[in-house]
Amino acid sequence: MTPHHRLQIDHRRFMADSIGESGLSPAEVKGLEGPLQDLAHRLAGWRQGRELSFFGLPFEPQHLETVRDWGSWIAAGFEHLVVLGMGGSSLGGEMLVRCLGGTGARTRVRFLDNVDPGGVDDVLDGVSWSDTLVLVISKSGNTAETLAQILTLIPRMERAIGARAVADHLLVLTEEEEGGLGRLGRDLGAPVLPHPPVGGRFSVLSPVGLLPAYVAGVDVEALIGGAARMGECCLARTVQDNPAFFGGGAQYLLARKGLTQTVVMPYTDRLERMASWFRQLWAESLGKLDAQGRNQGLTLVPARGATDQHSQLQLYLQGPLDKQLTLLHNADAPEQGDRIPRRFADLPAVAPLAGHTLGELLTAELYATRESLTRSQRPNRTLQLPCLDADALGELILLLETETVVVAELMGVDPFDQPAVEESKILTREFLSGSDPEAPSGN
Amino acid sequence: MTPHHRLQIDHRRFMADSIGESGLSPAEVKGLEGPLQDLAHRLAGWRQGRELSFFGLPFEPQHLETVRDWGSWIAAGFEHLVVLGMGGSSLGGEMLVRCLGGTGARTRVRFLDNVDPGGVDDVLDGVSWSDTLVLVISKSGNTAETLAQILTLIPRMERAIGARAVADHLLVLTEEEEGGLGRLGRDLGAPVLPHPPVGGRFSVLSPVGLLPAYVAGVDVEALIGGAARMGECCLARTVQDNPAFFGGGAQYLLARKGLTQTVVMPYTDRLERMASWFRQLWAESLGKLDAQGRNQGLTLVPARGATDQHSQLQLYLQGPLDKQLTLLHNADAPEQGDRIPRRFADLPAVAPLAGHTLGELLTAELYATRESLTRSQRPNRTLQLPCLDADALGELILLLETETVVVAELMGVDPFDQPAVEESKILTREFLSGSDPEAPSGN
Repeated sequence: MTPHHRLQIDHRRFMADSIGESGLSPAEVKGLEGPLQDLAHRLAGWRQGRELSFFGLPFEPQHLETVRDWGSWIAAGFEHLVVLGMGGSSLGGEMLVRCLGGTGARTRVRFLDNVDPGGVDDVLDGVSWSDTLVLVISKSGNTAETLAQILTLIPRMERAIGARAVADHLLVLTEEEEGGLGRLGRDLGAPVLPHPPVGGRFSVLSPVGLLPAYVAGVDVEALIGGAARMGECCLARTVQDNPAFFGGGAQYLLARKGLTQTVVMPYTDRLERMASWFRQLWAESLGKLDAQGRNQGLTLVPARGATDQHSQLQLYLQGPLDKQLTLLHNADAPEQGDRIPRRFADLPAVAPLAGHTLGELLTAELYATRESLTRSQRPNRTLQLPCLDADALGELILLLETETVVVAELMGVDPFDQPAVEESKILTREFLSGSDPEAPSGN
Repeated sequence: MTPHHRLQIDHRRFMADSIGESGLSPAEVKGLEGPLQDLAHRLAGWRQGRELSFFGLPFEPQHLETVRDWGSWIAAGFEHLVVLGMGGSSLGGEMLVRCLGGTGARTRVRFLDNVDPGGVDDVLDGVSWSDTLVLVISKSGNTAETLAQILTLIPRMERAIGARAVADHLLVLTEEEEGGLGRLGRDLGAPVLPHPPVGGRFSVLSPVGLLPAYVAGVDVEALIGGAARMGECCLARTVQDNPAFFGGGAQYLLARKGLTQTVVMPYTDRLERMASWFRQLWAESLGKLDAQGRNQGLTLVPARGATDQHSQLQLYLQGPLDKQLTLLHNADAPEQGDRIPRRFADLPAVAPLAGHTLGELLTAELYATRESLTRSQRPNRTLQLPCLDADALGELILLLETETVVVAELMGVDPFDQPAVEESKILTREFLSGSDPEAPSGN
C-alpha cells in the first residue's frame, strides 16, 4: 500500500477549470503517463539500490551512521563549524540549517560559499579558530574557489592555533582520492570522508547536507523518514497517484504554454533558503541542450511571502503571462505569533487586524495573493506543510528533487550533467595566468 | 559641462558586433533618442525642483539635515535600531546598511519586513528594548503588516521598559497625518517625521533610506554627492551621452527581442541587497498594463558571482535565449583578500591559483563568465565601480532609478503607480474577517 504524505498538494489552480485558458486540462496531464513509464521503471531501480542515485539516499541508513558519528564528535568539541563549498556542496546543508537548525545546538554553523574578500571577512567575523572545525566539501576535490578558501584559511589557522593543530580542526569530504582536496587533506593528516557518488546538487540527503544539519541540531532521522515516505509515494505509476509526476508534469506543460518562469514563494521566512537550493537544482538539471540541440530550461524565481507582495506581486499580476507559481505555507501558522491587540482598533486600518495573530494575518495574505493570482489567470499551486519540521521538509525535498527529474525526462535532457560550465573554469585559469580580458571573443 | 561619473559602464557586449544577432545595432539605440526627449524635459524639471520627484532628492540638502539631526540622536542613545517597514519602506535602507554599513558604528541596525512569526523572532533575537529605538516607516500609514508589527511590539516594549517609556523608543516616518501610523504615533507621544512625497520604492535617497544608513555609519553626504553627479550626467539629451538613456534604452530593445529577464549579478557579496532593492523598483515600476491594455514588464533575476556560476550559469549559457545580464564588480577587487600560498602548488588544481589574491581569482572568474556568455551570444554589460564606497553606490542608485524610468517611458507605462496590488489588500481583510478561502474565484 502506498503511504500517505503529510504535505498537502493543491494543484487545482494549475487547471483550466479554475484558472481559465492559461491552465491545463486533466487529459493533458494524464497524457504524460506514457512518456513517464521509463522513468517510473528507473525510479523503482533506484529505490531498490540496483543503481546508485539521489533517490536511493533516504533508503541507505549507513549514511546516517557516518553523520551521527562525525556530527557528535563535532558538536561535542567545537563551538563553530565553518563549511567551505560551492553550489551543491553548500546549498543543501545551508537550507537544512536555516530552515530547521539552531534550537538547542551548541555549535554555530556558517557557510563560506564565495571568494569575495569582503564576504569572507563577514562570514568569519567572530570565529575563534581554537573552537572551530572547518569542513571542506568538493565532490571532484578540484573546485577552484573551495581550494582557494582552504588554502588561505590554513595560514590563518596556523597563526592562531599552531601548524600541528590544524589537522585536528579540519575535515574533508570528497569523492576523488586523487583530487586536490583529498591529497591536501591526507598531506595535512586530516580525516577524509567519502562524498557519495551523486552530483552535488542532489546530495542534500547524504552527509554533504546532513552532517552540517546534524551539528546544527536538526533531527536528521525525521528528515530522512519524511523523504523516504515521499519516495514511496513517487513510485506510483499513474499521474494521479504520483505527486512528482503530476507536479513536474504540470509545470512542464505550463512551460510549453510559455510560462517558463517558476516562482517559488514560501510564506515562511525560514524556508527562504529552500528556494536557493531548489533554484540550483532546477537550473543546472534543466537548463541545457536537448538531443535536437534546442535550448531547454526553466528559470526559478525565488520570492518570499508576504514581503514580496510589496515588491513583486504587481509584476506577477499585470506583467507578461510568463510565470507559474508555487506557494508554500505551514498549516499551523495561524496558531503562531503574537496576537494584535484591540488597542487603536478605532483606526480604520487597524480594525480588521485587531484580535488576530500575526500567523493569521500571514495566512490571510497567502489566501488573498492566491485569489488575486487566480482572478488574473496566473496558474499557481499550493504546497502546505503541516508545520515546519524535519519530517515535512524531508518530504518536500524529495518531492522537488523528483519533480526536477520528471521535467528533465519530459524535456529530453539529462538532469545529472552540467556540460556548459567547464569552459568558464578553463577561462578562469587563463585569465589568472594573464590573458587579456579585452581580447575579442573566440567563437 | 557635464561631470564625469566614476562608474565605468561597458555596454559593448549588448551590441551585435560583439555578441552576434541577439545584440543591438548602434542605429537601433540611437533611434530611441526622439522618443526620450519628453522624458529629458521632465528630468530637467525634476532637477530644478519644479516638480517633486525622486530625481530631485540628491539636490535637496534639507533632507540631509533631518537625517543628521535624528541620526545623531539615535546613534548616541541606542545600541539597536529596529526598522519596521514593507517593500520600499525597508529595501532601500537595508541595501545601504548591508552594502556600506557597520564600520565604526556603535548602533546595530536590523530590518523587520514580514509578519512571519518565526522570522520576527529571528530578527529580534538579542534585542534589549531598553537600548533599542523602533523606527516605523509607512508612506500611507495604513500598511497592514507594518501596523501589525508595531502593534504587537508595543506590548513587548511595555513589559520590558514600562508603558510611559515607549514613546521615547519610537520614531514614526509617514506622509499622511491622518493615516493609522501617524495617529498611533501622536497618541503615544512619539515623534512623527514627514515621509517625502515620492513613492516608497523611489525613496532611498530621502530619510526613508538615509536615516537607517546614517545610524549604521554610512557616509550619506558622499552617497548623495555621487547620486547628484550621476543625476547631472542623466540630463544629457543624446543617447550616447546619457548613461541612463543608453542603458535603459538598450535593455528595452533587448527585451523586445525576447530577452525579458534581466539578470543582475554583482561579484561582490555586499552588493547582494542592491539587487533586492532594484528588483522591487523594476517589478513595480514596469510590470503593468500599457495604454493598449498589453501586459508589460521585465523580470529582474538576482544572482551572485562567483557563487552562482555553480548554480545558475549552466542555465544562462544553454537555457532559452530569454536573459540579458548586468554584471557588477569593483575595480579594486584584485588588491583585496588573502594571497593563496604556493604550498600544494604541485597539485594540478592548485597550480593556477598559487600566488594570486582571492580578489584576483574573483575578477578572473568575472572575466571568464563574461567571455563564456559572450561566446554563447548572451547579451551582457558590465558596471564597474572604482571601489565599494558611498559615492560610487550613490552613482549606481541614481543610474538604476533613472534607467527604470527610461524603460517605463519606452514601454508606455507609468513608473510611479502600482494599480494591481490594491485588490489583494482588500482580500486580506476579507479573509481575516472569515471569508472562505476555498470559495470559487469571482471574475
